[in-house]
Amino acid sequence: MPPLSQHPILQESFARIDRELGRHDFAPEEYAILRRIIHTTADFDFAQRLKIAPGAIAAGIQALQSGTPLVVDVGMVRQGCQGMVQRTFNNPLWTAVDLARTAAPGQTRTETGLLKAWEQWPEAVYVIGNAPTALQALCDRVVDAPVKPPLIIGVPVGFVGVLEAKSRLAALAVPQIRVEGRKGGSTVAAAIVNALLVLAWEALP
Amino acid sequence: MPPLSQHPILQESFARIDRELGRHDFAPEEYAILRRIIHTTADFDFAQRLKIAPGAIAAGIQALQSGTPLVVDVGMVRQGCQGMVQRTFNNPLWTAVDLARTAAPGQTRTETGLLKAWEQWPEAVYVIGNAPTALQALCDRVVDAPVKPPLIIGVPVGFVGVLEAKSRLAALAVPQIRVEGRKGGSTVAAAIVNALLVLAWEALP
Repeated sequence: MPPLSQHPILQESFARIDRELGRHDFAPEEYAILRRIIHTTADFDFAQRLKIAPGAIAAGIQALQSGTPLVVDVGMVRQGCQGMVQRTFNNPLWTAVDLARTAAPGQTRTETGLLKAWEQWPEAVYVIGNAPTALQALCDRVVDAPVKPPLIIGVPVGFVGVLEAKSRLAALAVPQIRVEGRKGGSTVAAAIVNALLVLAWEALP
Repeated sequence: MPPLSQHPILQESFARIDRELGRHDFAPEEYAILRRIIHTTADFDFAQRLKIAPGAIAAGIQALQSGTPLVVDVGMVRQGCQGMVQRTFNNPLWTAVDLARTAAPGQTRTETGLLKAWEQWPEAVYVIGNAPTALQALCDRVVDAPVKPPLIIGVPVGFVGVLEAKSRLAALAVPQIRVEGRKGGSTVAAAIVNALLVLAWEALP
């Protein structure tokens, strides 16, 4: 496929990031993801924190190309990637928190919605940019599931439960993209999805 | 007014930020904004970068309490603050980029939409989390306007035009909240709006 059209401002931003980051050891597809995160945050710290499991990008590309649903945790992640989804593969895009009108007892609302999503689409690509409770709940289900999601993007941000949820994900044998430490967030999650969609589009014959 | 209810996870996050930041020189209302930004980014660097003009918080509070419209640049900012708007003052909330179906020649689409918003609501609170072009266009209009917006929140993120747009805003005599440097973004913009809405709510008699 021809490359997706990019606004000149985006191209110039990428060029400036290339110059400032200089030499690095990322594979080209990993770098495409990192660069989009840095573009979205202006924070080069993510170069040290981005962790992409072997095979995760290939698994994500294949899933996206074949129309696999995306389950994101919150509306800001959805808002940040729905435009690129529409320009590429039109994957079904579900927002976990919107699936639960209220939180079940002892849960956050996003967690309750995530568990509803899991019942319906265990084969989806999961994207957690905000709620560590949702990532923990997802990991609890995935660990013993006979069929695992093709990819989990686990980049919640914050101070409570975030490190624990990311460690839990790291210990699972499932294709995954993480940001280590407390950083992450909705814009980072959307940047990763958008970078993968572009890679998947440009990898089409 | 009684305080807005806060989820226990948010309260605990705020307490951890308080402990980690330790002593500081922010006034209480300034700190409420900073703390919400750090909660949303896990990035304490914002403590050095957040710039709040004298009187800006009071002007913002008064505008929000009196139902002044909010004009945000992009959908992610809207998504990040519409819940708190609905819980408090139900201010009309307009998204600049959605006001323009296409970009006018030589403009970004967000800039074109921002200029349409300016024609209709020059008295709005303006919130730019993403597009430095929109912030520049806004400053171009505000500089000679007889009536200025009550508050401009100028926190676009990125590598092209961002420093210039923020410098331009800094030079204007208008109540403003900025993040210096290249950092910022939709989540930061939404955090500032949400913090102001909480302050405005809790300041009601």
